Amino acid sequence: MTTHWKLTLAYDGTDFHGWQVQPGQRTLQGTLAQALAAVTGEQVLPQGSGRTDAGVHALGQVTSFSLATAIPAANLMRALNHILPDAIRVLAAEPVAAAFHARHSARGKLYQYRVFPTRSSESQAGRVCSPFLARTTYVFPWALDLAAMQQAAQLVLGEHDFTSFAAADPDATSRRSAEQGRVPNMVRTLTVSEWTASTEARSTESASVLLYTVRGNGFLHHMVRNLVGTFLEVGRGRIGAEAISAILAARDRSQAGPTAAACGLFLMQVEYEA
Amino acid sequence: MTTHWKLTLAYDGTDFHGWQVQPGQRTLQGTLAQALAAVTGEQVLPQGSGRTDAGVHALGQVTSFSLATAIPAANLMRALNHILPDAIRVLAAEPVAAAFHARHSARGKLYQYRVFPTRSSESQAGRVCSPFLARTTYVFPWALDLAAMQQAAQLVLGEHDFTSFAAADPDATSRRSAEQGRVPNMVRTLTVSEWTASTEARSTESASVLLYTVRGNGFLHHMVRNLVGTFLEVGRGRIGAEAISAILAARDRSQAGPTAAACGLFLMQVEYEA
Repeated sequence: MTTHWKLTLAYDGTDFHGWQVQPGQRTLQGTLAQALAAVTGEQVLPQGSGRTDAGVHALGQVTSFSLATAIPAANLMRALNHILPDAIRVLAAEPVAAAFHARHSARGKLYQYRVFPTRSSESQAGRVCSPFLARTTYVFPWALDLAAMQQAAQLVLGEHDFTSFAAADPDATSRRSAEQGRVPNMVRTLTVSEWTASTEARSTESASVLLYTVRGNGFLHHMVRNLVGTFLEVGRGRIGAEAISAILAARDRSQAGPTAAACGLFLMQVEYEA
Repeated sequence: MTTHWKLTLAYDGTDFHGWQVQPGQRTLQGTLAQALAAVTGEQVLPQGSGRTDAGVHALGQVTSFSLATAIPAANLMRALNHILPDAIRVLAAEPVAAAFHARHSARGKLYQYRVFPTRSSESQAGRVCSPFLARTTYVFPWALDLAAMQQAAQLVLGEHDFTSFAAADPDATSRRSAEQGRVPNMVRTLTVSEWTASTEARSTESASVLLYTVRGNGFLHHMVRNLVGTFLEVGRGRIGAEAISAILAARDRSQAGPTAAACGLFLMQVEYEA
């Protein structure tokens, strides 16, 4: 009797070559598959809600797979956490209906992106980012105008064609569409898109980390990092906040800003129908 | 004209083989010496306030050295932070009197130690330590009685012979004493020794990290980690809090508990005469 499982994972992605299994590389999917094999003796490839890129972190990645082994959820979770490296933790394990699939069943996702600007408009002296933030925060060598970034962030709310913010190289979505003879659908709907300042206790000064929170019904490859890279151009004054609407309308990747570094990005939550 | 420098450093010690330079190893002292050579062209060996062991962190390590190169403090700090890996940050740089020496001039130190107990007395289920805490926190697989640990911690306050809590192998202090034909002085005075509960925002649950803070006029090799290892034996109920006084009086390393893991230890501050 096969059991279908849903696992919720947190991971520090710094020392992994992303989610997807690759020969000769230490990946999250591969490390989890090895741990599942060690616990159950079964060879399964856990499916993620999506592939996180190399260096991207998660506080709520979801994965699904089937096991023939009968094992209580609490025991599976404890055994996996015993075997997995400290950089990956199973936060929850639950049996689910056979129809559940971590990616196909997903209805939305929540991401956060953390930036530490080393310059500020108030002072000329550079600020120093704590070594304990550096693995999970993009250290940005310019001052940032939070209000301008928030103004820009609101312009991407709602339903848009996000071609300008999608990786120019074929991503999984467009490749799958092409295989099926369909034009890839680049339209997504964002219901949260906001910048806030977050003061963290363990930084070496009372330094504020700037936090971008975005929630949507789906995301194209590199979409969050390309949005953030463009908002940072707004924040440092290289483009105006209002330019975001024209960039969206252009449906041209070259109109938007650079891809922000992977280390600042967290997959916070994957949403499913109740 | 030689300038004597005092630098204050923060570092994530996880990926270093401790402070002291060692052939073929990545150490903090060696990495800093390389950065100083890159900035000034001079070969200097920066002296630390003490050697932190492999895996130990710092938010306020102090180092001193002399440079022939004339360079403003702000430029030296900026240039070093540009070259050093993100895991090491220069927090402050200041010229000091020639008599200043990071170790010899030190009058006291403040350390903190962080523990995450995965069991609690309230619940049978194990708690999961966030991957973002695991590099800087000792994950301890038992429930801990904070009140008993605090009672034990107070028994080491004041002036004591700390032989029972010093590394049994010869440390720098006793080796130097032996070279000089002196009996090593194992007496130290602690002015702060306390356990508190600290709730951290970025943990995956509202999990409290237990924090030991200790301040003294000096510390023997492994002394903080041996104190913590003994307090943890008290916390999990293997020895009574009052046993600490007898352990101190025995002046015998074998009477105390094990050496707690390096990853939980932070050198917070080094104190000098004003």
